[in-house]
Amino acid sequence: MALSILILGSGAATPSVNRNPSGILLKSESSSFLIDCGEGTQLQIRKYKESIQRIDQVFITHLHADHYLGLFGLISTQGLLGRERDLEIFAPKGLKEMIDVQLKITNTYLCFKLIIHEVDCSQSLMIFENKDIQVFSYPLNHKIPCSAYVFKEKIKPRNLIPSKITELKIPVYMRNKIKMGEDFIDDSGKIYANRTLTLDPQKPQSFAYFSDTKVLTKAPDVIQGVDLLYHESTFLHDMQSRAEKTYHSTALQAAEFAVKCEVKKLVLGHFSARYNELTDFVLEASKVFANVEVAKDGKQFFISE
Amino acid sequence: MALSILILGSGAATPSVNRNPSGILLKSESSSFLIDCGEGTQLQIRKYKESIQRIDQVFITHLHADHYLGLFGLISTQGLLGRERDLEIFAPKGLKEMIDVQLKITNTYLCFKLIIHEVDCSQSLMIFENKDIQVFSYPLNHKIPCSAYVFKEKIKPRNLIPSKITELKIPVYMRNKIKMGEDFIDDSGKIYANRTLTLDPQKPQSFAYFSDTKVLTKAPDVIQGVDLLYHESTFLHDMQSRAEKTYHSTALQAAEFAVKCEVKKLVLGHFSARYNELTDFVLEASKVFANVEVAKDGKQFFISE
Repeated sequence: MALSILILGSGAATPSVNRNPSGILLKSESSSFLIDCGEGTQLQIRKYKESIQRIDQVFITHLHADHYLGLFGLISTQGLLGRERDLEIFAPKGLKEMIDVQLKITNTYLCFKLIIHEVDCSQSLMIFENKDIQVFSYPLNHKIPCSAYVFKEKIKPRNLIPSKITELKIPVYMRNKIKMGEDFIDDSGKIYANRTLTLDPQKPQSFAYFSDTKVLTKAPDVIQGVDLLYHESTFLHDMQSRAEKTYHSTALQAAEFAVKCEVKKLVLGHFSARYNELTDFVLEASKVFANVEVAKDGKQFFISE
Repeated sequence: MALSILILGSGAATPSVNRNPSGILLKSESSSFLIDCGEGTQLQIRKYKESIQRIDQVFITHLHADHYLGLFGLISTQGLLGRERDLEIFAPKGLKEMIDVQLKITNTYLCFKLIIHEVDCSQSLMIFENKDIQVFSYPLNHKIPCSAYVFKEKIKPRNLIPSKITELKIPVYMRNKIKMGEDFIDDSGKIYANRTLTLDPQKPQSFAYFSDTKVLTKAPDVIQGVDLLYHESTFLHDMQSRAEKTYHSTALQAAEFAVKCEVKKLVLGHFSARYNELTDFVLEASKVFANVEVAKDGKQFFISE
């Protein structure tokens, strides 16, 4: 299955009717990862016909209200709907205290296990992996501790050509080994090179989420060449000094950063409520980086196209 | 100005796309009162083109997530937009701790004064008044401490007939006294009875908000004869046992209660997400109480018609 992101909220701190605060659903074959969870995120998930119970991991970049306020509602609803699977949340220090106070005061008993991992926003670490994907944190430059998240698919097994199985009578126990790169030797001792039996697997896909941050001066190794970079561009470049002051980026800066990191595609988001129309964001960014689009609530982007 | 309510959320705990969680804006001449503030309430206020800065008092019935989760977002946005006037919140014990933890951890500095009043949910008290309105609490019967709120306009001054001012040369200093019921004596000593000089003022309007509760068996004096009662009806009456178990009411029960309290009009709300269509709520309730309507997000009801 192709990895994709669904934009749940493309707005910044001041809410607007057309743009929910931050939230993105990264959909893989095995599950959905939620990245940031502004107020109303659970309603956006419902509106765009996704499942909140499919979310097993949530990644919060930082503890500004527009990035985490929807979390308690999401957790409550998962509980109301009878969730039993664990939910893991990755977030900077402080989130656990806020959630615990609300659970205590509202007398909420969750029938599932809530595991809150504290993300150290001062360094880049691999913070999660499952059989398909690894997730890395990366320090951003915002007013408060803030972490980017980078999702990288693991290298996939090679694809065994079905006709070869019958043609060479490849036994079941050998098939996974061949998918992992082994050659095959038949009963007569004849060797079949792996590349004659298999096709290249799909290239691992990668996605980086950068919000909120003053644009970084250095291109981090961890996002070098990623397929899709979602980068905040709260402002257009004529408001560069405001961006600087509020620890945000402009469309131009995000595009220059995309060039530096040699990413394949750039999606801009986290737009200030002062902008109704977003054409200027694309115009500004595409002067230096061609493959750019703007986020819009409800829009889906495939990670690699 | 006629008092009115604007429905911001007519849904119950499990969110649905068409119904936001609880929230109502009571609009008077001088300000707007917000009653309950479920997740997304600030966006609903914006969607229906009301002002969040006009809200100076918020009344929270109880600390279930669908009734208070939008509060921190609302407060944050009021701050972001440069609010300077005080904001008063009336809520059961515990809300202050939740807000304080979030303000502390998110390092939020508010440029206005936030005053949180703890409402004692075990008794009926006058908890607020301004020059126009008094607000009373009333204990509801829910799983956790929960308070109804009753808004009553004060008696208004009588309307001085403009032509009488010139005809009898009523001096400025006497006019307010006459509006408050005094007779007028002219320079010759002739007495003009107040009722020949004034017209009856508009009758004070009253509104009661009952959510969430098992239907009360006794009709409280404080809501006797109110113009409009908003009463939760999470379920239809065929789910009476579920209503009982979850400390909620049915449409029929709400209507019977409206009869007991001799209210003028009943608006039903807080509908379970299992109901798409609400016609049956009106049908069921109108068997015992004719003047009934169902709440719908974005719909406005005048308190007295």
